[in-house]
Amino acid sequence: MSRADRLVGLLDERELDCLLVTNLVNVRYLTGFTGTNGACVVARDERLFLTDSRYVEQAKQQVAGFEHLEASRELLGDLAARLRGRAGFDDAHVSVRAHRLLGEKAGEGVELVPASGVVEGLRAVKDEAELVAIRAAAELADVAYEELRAAGLVGRTEREVARSIVRLLEDRGAEGASFPPIVAAGAHGAMPHAAPRDVAIPAGTLVVVDLGARLDGYSSDCTRTLATGPLDDDQLEAYEVVLAAQRAAVDEVRSGIACRDLDARARDSVEARLGVVFDHGLGHGVGLEVHEAPRLARTAEGALAAGNVVTVEPGVYLPGRFGIRIEDLVAVTDDSREVLTGFPTELVTVDG
Amino acid sequence: MSRADRLVGLLDERELDCLLVTNLVNVRYLTGFTGTNGACVVARDERLFLTDSRYVEQAKQQVAGFEHLEASRELLGDLAARLRGRAGFDDAHVSVRAHRLLGEKAGEGVELVPASGVVEGLRAVKDEAELVAIRAAAELADVAYEELRAAGLVGRTEREVARSIVRLLEDRGAEGASFPPIVAAGAHGAMPHAAPRDVAIPAGTLVVVDLGARLDGYSSDCTRTLATGPLDDDQLEAYEVVLAAQRAAVDEVRSGIACRDLDARARDSVEARLGVVFDHGLGHGVGLEVHEAPRLARTAEGALAAGNVVTVEPGVYLPGRFGIRIEDLVAVTDDSREVLTGFPTELVTVDG
Repeated sequence: MSRADRLVGLLDERELDCLLVTNLVNVRYLTGFTGTNGACVVARDERLFLTDSRYVEQAKQQVAGFEHLEASRELLGDLAARLRGRAGFDDAHVSVRAHRLLGEKAGEGVELVPASGVVEGLRAVKDEAELVAIRAAAELADVAYEELRAAGLVGRTEREVARSIVRLLEDRGAEGASFPPIVAAGAHGAMPHAAPRDVAIPAGTLVVVDLGARLDGYSSDCTRTLATGPLDDDQLEAYEVVLAAQRAAVDEVRSGIACRDLDARARDSVEARLGVVFDHGLGHGVGLEVHEAPRLARTAEGALAAGNVVTVEPGVYLPGRFGIRIEDLVAVTDDSREVLTGFPTELVTVDG
Repeated sequence: MSRADRLVGLLDERELDCLLVTNLVNVRYLTGFTGTNGACVVARDERLFLTDSRYVEQAKQQVAGFEHLEASRELLGDLAARLRGRAGFDDAHVSVRAHRLLGEKAGEGVELVPASGVVEGLRAVKDEAELVAIRAAAELADVAYEELRAAGLVGRTEREVARSIVRLLEDRGAEGASFPPIVAAGAHGAMPHAAPRDVAIPAGTLVVVDLGARLDGYSSDCTRTLATGPLDDDQLEAYEVVLAAQRAAVDEVRSGIACRDLDARARDSVEARLGVVFDHGLGHGVGLEVHEAPRLARTAEGALAAGNVVTVEPGVYLPGRFGIRIEDLVAVTDDSREVLTGFPTELVTVDG
């Protein structure tokens, strides 16, 4: 059953006659199209793909199972003309202006119905081909850490290390990094989303490194906190706490566990032992986007299901002192889990 | 007069009591904030900046002249509470869902008024500090072409050349490339937005190279079509036609010329001599974004003004044969223009 066919099953649940798909990641997921301007309409008896003249040839090669329509660059007018009945649209993605244009150009009897998250729900459950791509992307992240370990960190700037990560991922076959790598030494590591600085990494500190590869459109995501020499006891204790929480959480990943419960256990165990809580979710889905469904967070709805691929990444952030985060990528299987990350989670010391 | 002060002048024109700014590029322009989550509200007697806990410290260092408010990650609820009267929002950027949330959470008497393009209008006219950054970014693009000329192209894959461009821009001080470079040889160059392939560049062909650097947040943009050896007469003739159109258009750049007239003259001169028309605008503004106002296109409104920085990039695309595009970055001055691109536009032959 094609992805579009599975989507049709979800239209009934939402009492929709068709779904307008404009988010390019969702368009790619449903059609295979990788250009920068395209959209599709999926209904029970219709699969319509639209792009502009620049991508008509590319679409012929990539998009099967859809009627092709060459549209103007803006797409919206041509899209609106093909909607009918209760037409779902992604209200989290479509702008107020685009929505107004759709409404003006849609035919009589068309009702635009907010319907975000439908394709994202399908995307959360990976098929085998997707798992193959994500595994390969995860292996590239492992390679990056092995090369970091070999090359050393002390004396290099955070920015230079971050750039070298992107380059080695490319040189090993990735399309690129799945996001700009984080390399944050010492107190800078206490900022969960630190930007790499033109500052040399000292010996005897912790360095948070967060990186991922992108391969065949799919992402990986892995964080390790590396030591650049002997640490003090506070740092070592905090590392052990985060590691224990991370391992316990990974071991709890399974089909059926509530996403917020998984988050709570890791969060609570860090808080109980260190008195601080990390200000981000325990994890998130990874696939065509590096952040996608499902979320593992305090306010997350739902439970994990076989085919989900999620990060498990507790951390601790002590302003002015240091930060620690340990993140694996984990696939939920029918009765267990598959950890896709191979680089060790034990504290690794990288000498300069 | 600060940028926010100038924005207030525009509120009167649109009969707005305040403007909600959520597009991060516009937020950066107005406040200097470079984080990934922030927004601001500008009114006659109020300058409010909101970000979440992750960026509070960063904002203290970057954002002056605004009241600071720590908000929840989603920002919208806290933003809505601070709106009053006729509150403009960017309808081309705000999603249908965000708009609904704003409406639900805004106080009595708040009217959300579509008002896109207000900050973009300010951004179209660069101040001297912005011109300094864009000039420096343009110089880095020149350096990239000089290095390409020295390194050669024949036998290298398009993808490897594209990656080498990003790396050399970084190594010469850029934050990165302002967009993924285009390197498209032979018939592939007939696609204006070609993605680099794992295909070796042959001798005796035309190679469209489109690249830019990003520096201090500002972009440059430059296209050259390079030869990798002797060309046939059709290619040489087409190059001369595009070059003549490009030079004529650059010479017409001045304050007061209608954007669509400038586009039409270049377009018509290519069509008159080659019988084909390029399917993209003659140019676009460049600044914090590599595509911004003003547009030089068939449907563009308005005229150029001093302080605008625009590309001038006519082309010709012959499917199955070759493509040619020549693009300079040009600043409009009070009574003339300043061409920011230094690499020659004459046909340059790069030997492998």
